[in-house]
Amino acid sequence: MRYSQAFIPTLKENPADAEAISHKLMSRAGLIRKLISGAYSYLPLGFRVLKKVEEIVRQEMNSAGAQEILMPALQPAELWHETGRYAVLGEELVTFKDRHGKEMVIGPTHEEVATDIARGQLRSYKDLPKIIYQIQTKLRDEPRPRFGIIRSKEFIMKDAYSFDRDEKGLDESYRKMFDAYKQIFKRCGLDAIVVEADVGFMGGSESAEFLVLSESGEDIVVGCESCGYKGALTKTACFPQEALKPKTQNLKPKAEIDTPGATTIEKVSKLLKCEPSQTIKTLLYTADGESIAVLIRGDHDVNEAKLSALLKAKELKLADEAAIQKATGGPMGFSGPCGIKGTRLVIDHAVSEIADGITGANKKDTHLVHVLPGRDFPIDETFDIRYIGHGEPCPKCKEAVSLARAIEVGHVFKLGTKYSDSMGAKFLDSNGKESPFIMGCYGIGINRIIASSIEQHHDKDGIIWPLAIAPYQVTILALNMDDAKVIKSSEELYEQLLRDGIEVLLDDRDISPGIKFKDADLIGIPIQVVIGSKGIKKSVAEITKRSDKKKQEVPAGKVA
Amino acid sequence: MRYSQAFIPTLKENPADAEAISHKLMSRAGLIRKLISGAYSYLPLGFRVLKKVEEIVRQEMNSAGAQEILMPALQPAELWHETGRYAVLGEELVTFKDRHGKEMVIGPTHEEVATDIARGQLRSYKDLPKIIYQIQTKLRDEPRPRFGIIRSKEFIMKDAYSFDRDEKGLDESYRKMFDAYKQIFKRCGLDAIVVEADVGFMGGSESAEFLVLSESGEDIVVGCESCGYKGALTKTACFPQEALKPKTQNLKPKAEIDTPGATTIEKVSKLLKCEPSQTIKTLLYTADGESIAVLIRGDHDVNEAKLSALLKAKELKLADEAAIQKATGGPMGFSGPCGIKGTRLVIDHAVSEIADGITGANKKDTHLVHVLPGRDFPIDETFDIRYIGHGEPCPKCKEAVSLARAIEVGHVFKLGTKYSDSMGAKFLDSNGKESPFIMGCYGIGINRIIASSIEQHHDKDGIIWPLAIAPYQVTILALNMDDAKVIKSSEELYEQLLRDGIEVLLDDRDISPGIKFKDADLIGIPIQVVIGSKGIKKSVAEITKRSDKKKQEVPAGKVA
Repeated sequence: MRYSQAFIPTLKENPADAEAISHKLMSRAGLIRKLISGAYSYLPLGFRVLKKVEEIVRQEMNSAGAQEILMPALQPAELWHETGRYAVLGEELVTFKDRHGKEMVIGPTHEEVATDIARGQLRSYKDLPKIIYQIQTKLRDEPRPRFGIIRSKEFIMKDAYSFDRDEKGLDESYRKMFDAYKQIFKRCGLDAIVVEADVGFMGGSESAEFLVLSESGEDIVVGCESCGYKGALTKTACFPQEALKPKTQNLKPKAEIDTPGATTIEKVSKLLKCEPSQTIKTLLYTADGESIAVLIRGDHDVNEAKLSALLKAKELKLADEAAIQKATGGPMGFSGPCGIKGTRLVIDHAVSEIADGITGANKKDTHLVHVLPGRDFPIDETFDIRYIGHGEPCPKCKEAVSLARAIEVGHVFKLGTKYSDSMGAKFLDSNGKESPFIMGCYGIGINRIIASSIEQHHDKDGIIWPLAIAPYQVTILALNMDDAKVIKSSEELYEQLLRDGIEVLLDDRDISPGIKFKDADLIGIPIQVVIGSKGIKKSVAEITKRSDKKKQEVPAGKVA
Repeated sequence: MRYSQAFIPTLKENPADAEAISHKLMSRAGLIRKLISGAYSYLPLGFRVLKKVEEIVRQEMNSAGAQEILMPALQPAELWHETGRYAVLGEELVTFKDRHGKEMVIGPTHEEVATDIARGQLRSYKDLPKIIYQIQTKLRDEPRPRFGIIRSKEFIMKDAYSFDRDEKGLDESYRKMFDAYKQIFKRCGLDAIVVEADVGFMGGSESAEFLVLSESGEDIVVGCESCGYKGALTKTACFPQEALKPKTQNLKPKAEIDTPGATTIEKVSKLLKCEPSQTIKTLLYTADGESIAVLIRGDHDVNEAKLSALLKAKELKLADEAAIQKATGGPMGFSGPCGIKGTRLVIDHAVSEIADGITGANKKDTHLVHVLPGRDFPIDETFDIRYIGHGEPCPKCKEAVSLARAIEVGHVFKLGTKYSDSMGAKFLDSNGKESPFIMGCYGIGINRIIASSIEQHHDKDGIIWPLAIAPYQVTILALNMDDAKVIKSSEELYEQLLRDGIEVLLDDRDISPGIKFKDADLIGIPIQVVIGSKGIKKSVAEITKRSDKKKQEVPAGKVA
């Protein structure tokens, strides 16, 4: 491609709303343009990268025995009611009524449609196993699109679905996809880590996330330098710290204290001049209709994924004002465990370690001090229901962990029979009996691979593409377009490289060398070949690797 | 691919709702499966064809200098208000309100977004010309989806947009796209015809349609065997038949006649025992707010595309009951031209040829007989505002034309400044003055290429794929899977063909040869290689071309 004819609208400034480095560089290098918050056009340079990533994904999926299909974006809402996910996805689901009044969904993911295909087309154990996949555009009505194409409303996903006869088959399909994912991220030049993850709204029994560390990520990964442990924040276990078990002797009886308006831990700590870690936060939840009081140390946060799993709850939500009043007898903001009757207490391990606690008194503008777990409220058993914090003991080796932000680029799930049961998707097993498909699903964010690559590979001047996903492999900078020899030499090299099947961008624009160098660094093509009047006189061209900026002079005839 | 592992769910029966042969065969050969009316999943075999067609389109577009991009499906409704097409598309437009209450559109086409990109990124005449294109999924809320993927709600379109400095540039871009289209359809094995076409809701000054003749088409093309003329029904001119000009002498004065309940031409003709061609149909329209009475022969139909163009009307619609009453003084169903005041009469050429006419009397249950144009109502000028009929004179050579159904596979438009004017999309010309982009747009229905190919290439046994878009080039039928020699020979050939880069489907299923032959004919892979016990004994394999079913015995070692 000749730069003079190409559509590469580079920018001098970062877009005002760009926070992530990948968003800034993709905009400035003319890879994408925003249409609205959360929806971007891929311009030619960005599109080329997109296709390269898609092709790597496709090759590895095919190698793993998955078969490519294409399912509609347009789906009947009924399918989503069948699995109950219409309610679970809620406002995130893009829906509309068609001209005949039928409610439709624009697919945010395709478990329902894939299961519908299986229940119609796969009838016998002989048809199994099958892994089908697609590379397809999804819509989700994200409340807060951010970081350019990292968290957007419209995005391209590679989503795969496996159908097996039994758990052993699922293990095998899952392993194939897992291995393919590792290979995909490696080929795309990404340093991806794998962590055990929460199943979230997908459901199922087991899942793993593929993450790329980056400040622009919205996932948090827990890592231990000592033993190499990596885990998702939602999944990493927190252990009770035995050494800190409270001494129960000599603590004064609990007593009420006025705390006007102190409805948050922050306000209570400030007012009573205590550490948040000394307070016991009491949160009222409704789990599948049952009222639950969750007790957690004031400086900790409830991990609802752990809590849901513990309670085996399908629906978990914070109680409203009325439900709190009913369960505790007091107003919101002043709940505490003392004297609560008829509501189950679910207590985090760390609460048991509090030796002289402060809690709400279930009474307006009032807290209790000198509260002792076990004495002032029952504490038969404690659980792990919180997020781990920076510096806490590693679940494996007990050394201090650290937390880091990361971008989720892939996610694999063992779904089991969650979808096949709810949708009645069955096959005839070898005994002629109906049996539900054992399913897995496997997603890759195509756009996020691109953004993650930039997050990991850039410098102050621009993008540094790995060769495998670079929009072009080589760019020729014809520095002096007023020098016929420069033009001739550049054109000859351009033609020769094209003949050799190399993707090359010839910068034949009639502009200053300075801008050419700047643009070349910004768009980040791995190999720059500089042809200028000075070099021509010495019969040399200069080859620069974008990654380390190392220059090499090469005799003019030997560049190719 | 091994058939035993492939996902090719062939069917014995046609789907109940399938009318078109392509729909039947795509379903039976396991290429597609219906999710809902108008939305289909492409299964592996169908997906392979889809990718091949896309790749041919991509290659030809790139050769023509167009640059591939990808625009979002998700578009703000505002853009559609800017061009006024929000109202024009009406119910066909899929819209929804996002969680913040903003109205969004799922793109049915991308003129608005493409023009928005141009107005942001193309600033100078030096940036022009540019042709951008994408291969992207569209949604339209079709009132009556039909013929499988031929008229569906969700479809894949190649849409291209050209931006030029002037009309001369547009002519050049248009020609490039036109030539690329011819090449694309040829490479896909389609016998496509080109006709001058109506611009429809796209607007602009000139357009051409690429059509494939087929009973499953929804377009009608007018053809003349004598001179070779081909034209779209909407555009083909109808000439006044001079020879038939009425003789005005000796006609009795017009007279009222009772026609109770005869509100249609059919009823009037039946009641008065006359030919529909003797009646004058009077249709009241509102054109940009003005009331118009359109006169046409009873057996003809108004061509609203011609009428709109004649009136230069932006909005044209049939008048409602109240407007008819106001304009004619009579009820709907009994309108006529006699005595109408203050409403412009727009008269079709053929009306002037009626020698003894019948019209509505603008009075309930009453018509007029012995009506003579020119005597009983003014007829200063007549126009071509109707559709041509089978057997009428060709607009070029006056011989009889014939009408045939066809599928529209491509459409090219000279848009001019329709979008750049309404959206304020301008560039600085060589004099530093702001000037609107001169635009063109160019669409290809990717799905329709596939369906059209099947409509043109099939027999009673199944599909006959052209080599260029076949899902596999070769299929090996290993007839006797209980014969180790057959297995060995088939496997060796399979491996060898794969090494040679040939796409091959090995039918290694342990089923009867009869089913293998049936399935092979149904899915239509161009070359069948039959390896069976009988042949092995003679050291031969049989090669059959799917297109003509010609068989050829080849020595076992020489098949590849």
